[in-house]
Amino acid sequence: MRVIDIGDPADSRLDPFRDLNVADRRPDAGDSGLVIAEGLYVVGRMLVSPLSTMALAGTEAKLGRLREDLAAEGHSLDALAGDAPFYRVSNEVLSAVIGFASSRDVLAVAPRPTPRMTSDVLGPARTLMVLEGVNNAENLGAMFRGAAAFGADGILMGAATADPWYRRTVRVSMGHVMNVPWANLGGTPTTWQRGLTELHDAGFSTIALTPSADATLAEAMARVGAAGGAGRVALLVGAEGPGLTEHAMRAATLRARIPMAAGVDSLNVATAAQIALYERFR
Amino acid sequence: MRVIDIGDPADSRLDPFRDLNVADRRPDAGDSGLVIAEGLYVVGRMLVSPLSTMALAGTEAKLGRLREDLAAEGHSLDALAGDAPFYRVSNEVLSAVIGFASSRDVLAVAPRPTPRMTSDVLGPARTLMVLEGVNNAENLGAMFRGAAAFGADGILMGAATADPWYRRTVRVSMGHVMNVPWANLGGTPTTWQRGLTELHDAGFSTIALTPSADATLAEAMARVGAAGGAGRVALLVGAEGPGLTEHAMRAATLRARIPMAAGVDSLNVATAAQIALYERFR
Repeated sequence: MRVIDIGDPADSRLDPFRDLNVADRRPDAGDSGLVIAEGLYVVGRMLVSPLSTMALAGTEAKLGRLREDLAAEGHSLDALAGDAPFYRVSNEVLSAVIGFASSRDVLAVAPRPTPRMTSDVLGPARTLMVLEGVNNAENLGAMFRGAAAFGADGILMGAATADPWYRRTVRVSMGHVMNVPWANLGGTPTTWQRGLTELHDAGFSTIALTPSADATLAEAMARVGAAGGAGRVALLVGAEGPGLTEHAMRAATLRARIPMAAGVDSLNVATAAQIALYERFR
Repeated sequence: MRVIDIGDPADSRLDPFRDLNVADRRPDAGDSGLVIAEGLYVVGRMLVSPLSTMALAGTEAKLGRLREDLAAEGHSLDALAGDAPFYRVSNEVLSAVIGFASSRDVLAVAPRPTPRMTSDVLGPARTLMVLEGVNNAENLGAMFRGAAAFGADGILMGAATADPWYRRTVRVSMGHVMNVPWANLGGTPTTWQRGLTELHDAGFSTIALTPSADATLAEAMARVGAAGGAGRVALLVGAEGPGLTEHAMRAATLRARIPMAAGVDSLNVATAAQIALYERFR
């Protein structure tokens, strides 16, 4: 692997890692942005993912550990990195570049991959999540992590959902946003739900998670023949607080709730989504 | 309620709300610290909790909404607040006092309550969580939120677990750390597990969550007669990453795992704990 020492924080080769916290300069912002992986584990996930790692930056110590961790998984850092350079820097230079002190002192960057079509995600899938208004980067990341943990096949984004390629989402997902297929359903806040027709036509049952449903999750899964991983099912989850819109709930096959104690505000939305996946594969 | 206008951020009456982010001055730090509630919902939870609210601070707009929100729950702000003053400030003054800009522009403060004894938490409980090394404030808060959502009866703290009264834990718990009973088991990292004897003597089965267990959570619950809320059960959860110590796992009645996809790093620890509670009450 090409290891290149850089001692000047202003070196333009480090620009893809610069000012990560500055909203209007973030290299991972917007449609033309990059995907940034932070920390040993997530950098490793980028290298083994379908994304094309452009460059890495980090300390000598982290370069060694990255090599070891990947070797323990049966991978070669050199083979995975290909032509991507590793910019070897001190911790001080790295902090000056990214704009804050971090213990995750190795990073990697890749171009955003071409967005997937809904049909590409749908094709082989048996278990999907469909999100509406999940505008919190950490909740979105947690859902990708849960999708990977339970073996869900993909995530479809309704309106007003956060950008899965945002750095914090990538990090909280433990990098699984780079492995779990996802696509935008398109449309507006009041029209995206039409995209569910494509799922129903493909034989999916759609279950809308809402605390106001009569049926429990277990009952709803049984009713549509989706228990134990059978059939094709998509779980609809809305934003923390407002939940799914009426539009979305009306478009779903069934509504279901997670049984909870009386008088308590609902669960965190990412937790609720992961409990639904647990029930699906239980 | 006593509404007192304050225009000077240096006013000493605002000291309990000062410099919330400064590690060595935080008013909620250490055993002699305070409990701080942030935002309408959590301030409301403090007022209805057993804690003695000492003072509130916030904008005129938030005072109005707090009154309305509590009235919608059938409570009177004046009755709940008693002698506690509401320091009415501008958003600018509040930001200057707490040390950062926040949209959660109402706060309340109470003295830390007297710590509970393990036996007080154990007495009436049928479902407990026991935590070891859960040193992440947000994960701990999420577990309290989940305990409240599913109706768990309490949380016992093994060694090296974060402070439940820390501001971020209170916030992420949605204030439920003030309502779900908890106690420290005492002891050291290698002796606290003896506290589990007290649970076993009281008829609790203890189930240690670990990805390496043979039994699934559902199998383990059935084996100890704890499915569907029956019997007395305590769920042992370790830190994200290292998980439970061998000491803790050996002291437990049974080990159990959450079924997951092969080759994937485990779930977030707070999510795993809440899935265990879901399975318990399913």
